[in-house]
Formats: sequence, C-alpha cells, structure tokens
Amino acid sequence: MKEVNSGDVLSLCKRRGFIYPSYEIYGGIAGLYDYGPLGTQMKTNIMDLWRSIYALEEGFVEIDSDIVGPEMVFKASGHAENFQDLMVTCKLCGEGFRADHLAKDFHPNPGALSKKELGELIVRENIKCPLCKGDLSEVEEFNLMFKTKIGPGSGRIGYLRPETAQGIFVNYPNLYRYMRETLPFGAIQIGRAYRNEISPRQGVIRLREFNQMEAELFVDPVDKRWPRFSAVRDNKVRLVPNTDEVEIETTFGEALDKGIIAHETIAYFLWVTQRFLTKAGVDPKRMRFRQHLKTEMAHYACDCWDAEALLSYGWTEIVGIADRGAWDLTRHMQYSQADLTAFKRFDQPQEVERKAFKPKYGLLGPEFKARSAKVGKALEAADISLLKDGKVELDVDGEKLSISDKYFDIVDVKEKVNGVKFVPHVIEPSHGLDRILYTCLEHAYTLGEENYVTLNLTVDAAPIKVGVLPLMGKDDLDKKGMEIDRTLRERGIATYFDDSGSIGRRYARLDEVGTPYCVTIDYEVFENGTVTIRDRRTTKQVRVPESEVVHVIEQLLHGRPFEELIAKV
Amino acid sequence: MKEVNSGDVLSLCKRRGFIYPSYEIYGGIAGLYDYGPLGTQMKTNIMDLWRSIYALEEGFVEIDSDIVGPEMVFKASGHAENFQDLMVTCKLCGEGFRADHLAKDFHPNPGALSKKELGELIVRENIKCPLCKGDLSEVEEFNLMFKTKIGPGSGRIGYLRPETAQGIFVNYPNLYRYMRETLPFGAIQIGRAYRNEISPRQGVIRLREFNQMEAELFVDPVDKRWPRFSAVRDNKVRLVPNTDEVEIETTFGEALDKGIIAHETIAYFLWVTQRFLTKAGVDPKRMRFRQHLKTEMAHYACDCWDAEALLSYGWTEIVGIADRGAWDLTRHMQYSQADLTAFKRFDQPQEVERKAFKPKYGLLGPEFKARSAKVGKALEAADISLLKDGKVELDVDGEKLSISDKYFDIVDVKEKVNGVKFVPHVIEPSHGLDRILYTCLEHAYTLGEENYVTLNLTVDAAPIKVGVLPLMGKDDLDKKGMEIDRTLRERGIATYFDDSGSIGRRYARLDEVGTPYCVTIDYEVFENGTVTIRDRRTTKQVRVPESEVVHVIEQLLHGRPFEELIAKV
Repeated sequence: MKEVNSGDVLSLCKRRGFIYPSYEIYGGIAGLYDYGPLGTQMKTNIMDLWRSIYALEEGFVEIDSDIVGPEMVFKASGHAENFQDLMVTCKLCGEGFRADHLAKDFHPNPGALSKKELGELIVRENIKCPLCKGDLSEVEEFNLMFKTKIGPGSGRIGYLRPETAQGIFVNYPNLYRYMRETLPFGAIQIGRAYRNEISPRQGVIRLREFNQMEAELFVDPVDKRWPRFSAVRDNKVRLVPNTDEVEIETTFGEALDKGIIAHETIAYFLWVTQRFLTKAGVDPKRMRFRQHLKTEMAHYACDCWDAEALLSYGWTEIVGIADRGAWDLTRHMQYSQADLTAFKRFDQPQEVERKAFKPKYGLLGPEFKARSAKVGKALEAADISLLKDGKVELDVDGEKLSISDKYFDIVDVKEKVNGVKFVPHVIEPSHGLDRILYTCLEHAYTLGEENYVTLNLTVDAAPIKVGVLPLMGKDDLDKKGMEIDRTLRERGIATYFDDSGSIGRRYARLDEVGTPYCVTIDYEVFENGTVTIRDRRTTKQVRVPESEVVHVIEQLLHGRPFEELIAKV
Repeated sequence: MKEVNSGDVLSLCKRRGFIYPSYEIYGGIAGLYDYGPLGTQMKTNIMDLWRSIYALEEGFVEIDSDIVGPEMVFKASGHAENFQDLMVTCKLCGEGFRADHLAKDFHPNPGALSKKELGELIVRENIKCPLCKGDLSEVEEFNLMFKTKIGPGSGRIGYLRPETAQGIFVNYPNLYRYMRETLPFGAIQIGRAYRNEISPRQGVIRLREFNQMEAELFVDPVDKRWPRFSAVRDNKVRLVPNTDEVEIETTFGEALDKGIIAHETIAYFLWVTQRFLTKAGVDPKRMRFRQHLKTEMAHYACDCWDAEALLSYGWTEIVGIADRGAWDLTRHMQYSQADLTAFKRFDQPQEVERKAFKPKYGLLGPEFKARSAKVGKALEAADISLLKDGKVELDVDGEKLSISDKYFDIVDVKEKVNGVKFVPHVIEPSHGLDRILYTCLEHAYTLGEENYVTLNLTVDAAPIKVGVLPLMGKDDLDKKGMEIDRTLRERGIATYFDDSGSIGRRYARLDEVGTPYCVTIDYEVFENGTVTIRDRRTTKQVRVPESEVVHVIEQLLHGRPFEELIAKV
C-alpha cells in the first residue's frame, strides 16, 4: 500500500463532491470549506451514528442553541480573555502571522514561549516577513473569536461561539428541570463553532468555521463511578499517559486500577469514543489516547485525554475528553447571578455542621434600633461566604446594609438538613466533526495497481450505500434497475443509479467514493431471475434472486458478512 | 375549542423543553431562541421529513456551506445594497426602532413608504420615542446583515449569510459537474441564516438567528415543464392570486390552465410544499398560497408564492416558492467572472445565425503590421458583447489592445454548433424552519376541559413517539417496561420511559408534548401476557400481546390506523 498524502485526499474530495473550498469562484478564503453532496451525506451519517450512541443508547438529551452570543457569556467562559494567539504583522505588506509559526526554525517549542520571549526571539534572530521580507511589528495578542454587533446603532457586542458547549452550560437550569432534577444527566449539541485563525493551513484540519459534536455530562462531584463501566473494562486501548509519555497498550480497567485514568466516568467515555470512532471508520491501528501533560491541562481540569489519529499531518487531536470540574457552571453563576446548582436529597435528614454568623444583639440594638431584630435574623440566615474584608453586605427590607464584624461572631452551628446543594462537575467528550470525517476519508483512501483508488469507508459512514447498475440502459434492464433503486430508496437507503458507460468504469467511480455494495442487473435476470451483488472490499460478486436483493442488502448494511453469502452460494 | 394564543404556546414550549429564550440567565436577547431537548428532536424530525421528500423522492443533492462569507458574495447577491430596514434612533435613550413600525398608527401601509416619506410623516405627526418620549433621529438605512471580520488586523469584511441559498449558487460549477452536466437538477441546504432585526418581536416568528431549508432547482429557461406534474394536477389547493387578492379553492391543474400559476414547475413545487406542510402538521384548513403582488415581487422574479399559515399573529409566510429567473447566477457571473452557465448539446449540430466582428484587414495591416493577422483572428473569435463605446478590448499574445470600430464591421454569420450555452433559471422553494415548527405547535395546541392541554402533533413531527409506562415502578413491571423501551430504542424509535406518579398524570405529561402512543404495562401482563397501547388522539386503548407490541407500534408509526386495532379486538 502506497503512502497517502493529504493532497491526494483533498483532490479526490473536490473532484467527487465531498469537500469544496468555500467561495472558490471568488478566489476562496483560507480556513473555509463547504461540504458537497457526498460530504454532506457522510457528515449526516457520522452525526447520526454519534447521536445513536449518545442519545439513544446513553440517554443524553440534545439541544440546539444559538451561534451568536453576547459578550458576557464569553467573559464568563474565559474566551474573551484567553482564546487568543500571539501574532505579528508585516509593516510592509500588512499580512498577519502567528508569532510561534515564524519562530519554529529557531526554537524547539515556540508555542510555549511568552509574548515577551517571542518578541525577543524575533528581534534576536532578525526574523522578517516570509512573504515580502518586510520588518515585523511587535508581538500582539489576537483574540480568535469572530466579533459582531447584535442590533442597530452602537449595538451590543456579540461573538460567534468558539465552542458549542457554552450553549449547554447557559441552559443548565432548563436542562436540570427537564431531567426532573436528577443527576447524572448528559446533554449533547451538534453545530457550528468558530475560530478566527490568523493564517489557517492543513486543509480541513484547522478551519475558521467548523462543526463540533459536544457532550456535557453533569455529575455529582463526590461520585464519579459509572456502573456500566464494568461491562467494558476488559477492552483494549492504546494510551499515552502523561507520566512518561510512552505509548502503552492496556485495558481500560487496568489503566483505571493503576490510576492512569482518573475515574470510571472518564474511562467509560474513552471507551465510548473508541467504539464510535472505529464504527465511523477511523483505523484502530492509527488511533490512540494521549493524556494532557500537567502543564498543558487547563487549570480547572482534573483529567484530560485527546483521541489522536495518525494522519499525513502527524498525530492529530480529533476528540477531547475532559473532566472540567465545577469550572464552567461556577463561572456562569458568578457572572449571571443565576443558580446553577443541583440539589441532592438525603434518604433521611442529616445533621451537618457549618459556620454561621452569630449576631451580637447587644451591639445591634443601639445601632439599628427598631430594625435590629431584622438585621440579626438576616445575619443568621446569611451564608458565611458573604464575609469580605471584615464586612457583610445585607439586604434588609430592600435596603443595602454593610455590617462590620464587630456586630457578630463566627460560630459553628449544627442543623438538620434534607439535602445538599452543589455545583455539578462536567465531564466533556468534545468531537471535531470535520477532523473525524477527514480522518475517515484519509484512513479509507487506498491506492492500488494503476492508480486505482478505493475508499474503504465503513457502511455507517459511506454516503452512498448501494450502486444500482443495469448492464445496459436498454432492453428493460434499466427499468428493472430503476425498480430496485426505487425500492431501496423507499427503505431509506441511499443509492446511486448509473446506467451509462462501461461497467468497470462504473464500479471504479463507486469504489472511489466508498460505496460498499453494487447491484448489477444483467441479462441473466431474464433467464433465472437473479442479479449480482458486488462487495467493494473484496470485489467479489454473488448472484441473488431479484426478489431477495433488497432484503439481502439490508442484512449486509446491518452487519451480515458478505463471506456468508458466498459460502451459501 | 378555545382560542389559542402565542403566549400559551411559548409558555408550554419553555416549560416542557421545546424552545427556550437564549441566554436567559443573562437576561436574554430579543430575537434569539434555543431549541430544548423536545424542540431539537422535533426540528430534526421536520428536517428528516423534508429531506426524505427532496433528497430521496425528488433526487435533489444536499450541500452544507459556510455561514460566514466575504463581502463580494453579498454585493453580488444584492444583500449589501438592499437587505435593509429604515430605522430611527431615540436621541435621548439611544434605542433604535423600525421607522415603519412607529408610523403604523398614522398610515395604512407604512412599509411601502420611502425613506423621505417616512421622515416627513414622523415630523408631521410629531412621533416620539415610544419608550422615553425623546426626540427621534432622521430616518436611516440599517443593513440587516451581521458584520464581522475574517482574519486578523484590518482583516477582510465578512457577513453572516442572510439566506442559505447563496452557498448553493456560488457552488453551482461544482454541483453542475457533480450532476454530470445535465439539467434540470436540484440542490438543497439546511442551516442557519441571520437577520439583524432592529427590534424583533413575535416570539420565534421574527428571529435574528434562524433556520432555513432551501431548495434551488436549476432549469432550462425554455423548458419549465415538469413531467411528474400530471400525477398531481387534480389535487385541491387554496390560492390567493395577485389579480384580485381573493382566496379561491381550485386544483393545481386548473390554476395552471388559467394562467394563475406561471408554469408546471412552480405548480408542482406548490403541491410538494402543501404535501410536506400537511405531513409535518400544518392544519390544511389554516394554510393557503398567496401570490406576491406585481409591486411586491423582486424585479427579477417571474412568479412568486408564499405558503401562509393562519397563526395567532395572523396569516404568516412560512414558505416562499419563487421563479428567480437567471438573476442569481448572472450576478455571480458578473462579480466573480466565473462561468456559471450550462451547455445543452443538440441531438444534431444546428446551423445558427449570430452577429460577429468582420475585421477590415486593409486597415488593420498598416496599423498592426506583423500582428495584424492575429488581431484579425482575435476579432473574428470575439463575442459581440465585448463591444463597448465603439471599442473592443482584446488580448493578443498577452497584450491588451483596444480596437476601435473603424477596423471592423458587424455582420451576420451562420455557423454549425453542437449545442448552446445558457444561464439556468432558478426555481426556489425556501422554508422558514422555525416558523414551520412553531406553526405545527400552535396548530396542534388543543385546550380541553379543565385546561387539559393536548398537542396533536403528527407522528412524523412528534419528538417522542412512544411513552413506556409500567403501572408501578416495582413487581417486575418496571423490568418489563425497560425491556420494551430498550427494544423500541434499538429500532430507532424515540421513547420516554416513566415509572413514577399516577398513570393519569403521566398520560397528561405525554399528551402535553404530543406523544402519539403510550404503552402501559399493568399486572395483566402476568396473567395473559398483554399490555395496552393508548392512542393520544382518541385516548382509546387496546390490549396487545407483549411479544407483538414493538411490531404494532412500528405499523402505527408507518400509518396504520389505530381504529383498525380496535376493530380487530
């Protein structure tokens, strides 16, 4: 098998209608690609497969939230501050560049350098504009969100979401209510997200407009067990733990027992991810999970793994699975003042001890006169977290009062409570849909003798499931073909009917776009009522009675091995 | 049946997880809504239904193009210039308003007034800010596209697409090639589009971020027949023609014969639209097609119809079906210089007459010397449309030459040609997905005795198809229920399992979200092996053997009448 390069894959994609550069008639724009007819169908297939796992099997609910959002949401999420790259601009031609990209010949890991360090490196090494050799500007931060305005006039600043996840977090109260206030529960979203790359490269791997499939699982922070994990613990997996960064082959169970994977829930969703990717068509031999280094992990994350695929670009992240702790909901609580907690009811009321304010009524009286009783009650009810710089801000009868700590003590109190409120933790499997789709294409791309290209797409991913090919476009062969074609379509099976050109050329066209099966109608249909079914993987054919062809195709699409048919015949 | 108002419908939508105001924890933003779990499922169902008609039955191909696009695309489409509303701003509070909305108490049809007329009306009637009574600004144009920048620095101006259609038009050359260069062919796209409304109202009817399902059919301008129309011509339809603006009931065939509908292709897709909307759940008695007035129609459109639904807001456009002529492709040809034509090969070469340049070689010689022969040939080959202001710009050996008309005559030439190049016309059925979904909800909303709410959603649209309800969450009833639930889910059927609370309350919850069928497992299952299936429309129940329940549910979902089951029992 010859080495595959991304150029060959992208060229096939364009030629055969999987992926087109966007706005090509206007010269195109880097980092923007459209899905053509076959790409759209394949994308839908991958989405449906993912949905069938998360929604139907795992019981996650799906939402569909807006892409444009107000600034406050992204201040809360941290993107307004942190979603940025360091860039330099050419003073001569005006082109912008990622500073770390320009520094890559002069430093082993320029991505880890600070703004100051990169600036110094560029001066020291006298780096110029790669396009026109002009002098470069200072290094600046460039926020990667697309900015816009909502409404007229000075408007309200808005951004295109950098991830679909935030739409789930801000809907947490709605979803918690929908799930009848029980944890754990999961929500998924499939949709567009945006990253205004400074200078995108690598085809569809680094896009400015891309598609995500994200799942957010809300769990009790003190219980990250996952009952169904026991059923999958013995499955094999390839891991690159962050301790010594060496790839190991182990089982999910063993990795958990050794403390490599933080807990059962993460381990279970690593398994779900591996199963999904394999079904979609990622080659298991070119897939692994790499644990984020401690230095690489977001400060709030407890554990974080990337599913990586080996592509012609090198090992590439296609899914991220992270335990994000309470970070997201806590931040949105702070910024929105909304209640994003869950309530866990105890089986029986429990006695708990907590710190509380104990008012000094003797001092409150003289100061607050008639209101002192109310102030005291408000203090007793107030949460200890309100104490700041020796003062507590209280709302008493609609008036804001600032009570200094000379008016109260802090004491331990015991009380009976029915349950406890807490901020759920979030486990997030986040999928780059475009990258997954591209990986399926590159891993499926097979160059044979005489440059014969076959896409070995899985049955789940393949955009066309069955080619329907009357040997000739005449003698009623075409009519028989159209009948079979219509029946298959009525069963919801995507077909491609083709009655022109040599049969070999037609097989070749269908092999090139990954069609798993072809039904060929030749003159034998009039002799013994049979047609042939051809298997793309083996190029073998079997004859099947015309009346059974739809049924047999359905069985094949549901996993019946083609070899079984041959054996039978 | 009591009158339904949109407030009741939207309140149910929020309470039960169909539609949530976006960013509600941050106070919400007018014109932005999210789909909750049931809304997302219902939206997917409507999309799938539409796809099954356009992609599987009619053979349209689907694409998925980018939302962000460069300015040039929207200059070509006309949106940069014309996609705007007239607005005024309050000088005191800074709020913006649509000028025609403020004028509505003072003019019968303020939407038809010009900028100048609206300005004069506001001064004459002394209209003030409806919020703070402040003085209003001059009337200004406000472009309704969301603006952004692509890339860093000064960047490139970009817009969020105002319609999905442009993504299909700019991909025309790719799609024409994909369809092996034959007309007619159709392409569809489902996705987000944007309209930065000045002050959105009417719930989800007027959204800033919305979902479209658009179909673009490319046809030969001289052949707008549609063979399959003959099969549907006798179906009934309610039309409001633009001649006298009175609603009539007729057939598609009659309307075509009388010249009310421009041609077969439009007539056929009116029928397709009516069939789709009815299957989705729009009440046929509250639906009609209104023809655009001549004054209302875009200047390039040959014929244009709105499918309107009667809502609590009044008659509301939910689909538009237009013959857009050659407008879109011609504009993109002009702005991109790309070839967006189709080629029609004649059965036999035909002799055609055309105007051409005939060089005056006697004059070319002295002027162009050695090159005169080449200039002459270039003139002969040049298209007559290149003649501008008495001159022709030619490219000869890489040099641009301007040849004045003293060097040539214009003559009629006859030649044999194999075919003809032309710009296809576009027939566009364009669907407002959010409006259709809302219409299905409002038309399904039924308020019965004691405020009992039933959503009579169609089987196709209903987000949950089957409720699975063990009478008790114990005595193995729950286990039997879970088994049935799992089997249904494995068949891809969306279920809701609920084993808590009174059975009446559970039916009510499921009726309120439009669930067509409930399977109830009671103690009889242990006696005679049967469970009940309940029909939402009639609230009737039948007993069915446990082993047959999945099969019967599948039949019901595929259209078997529930009454047939009752009769059988």
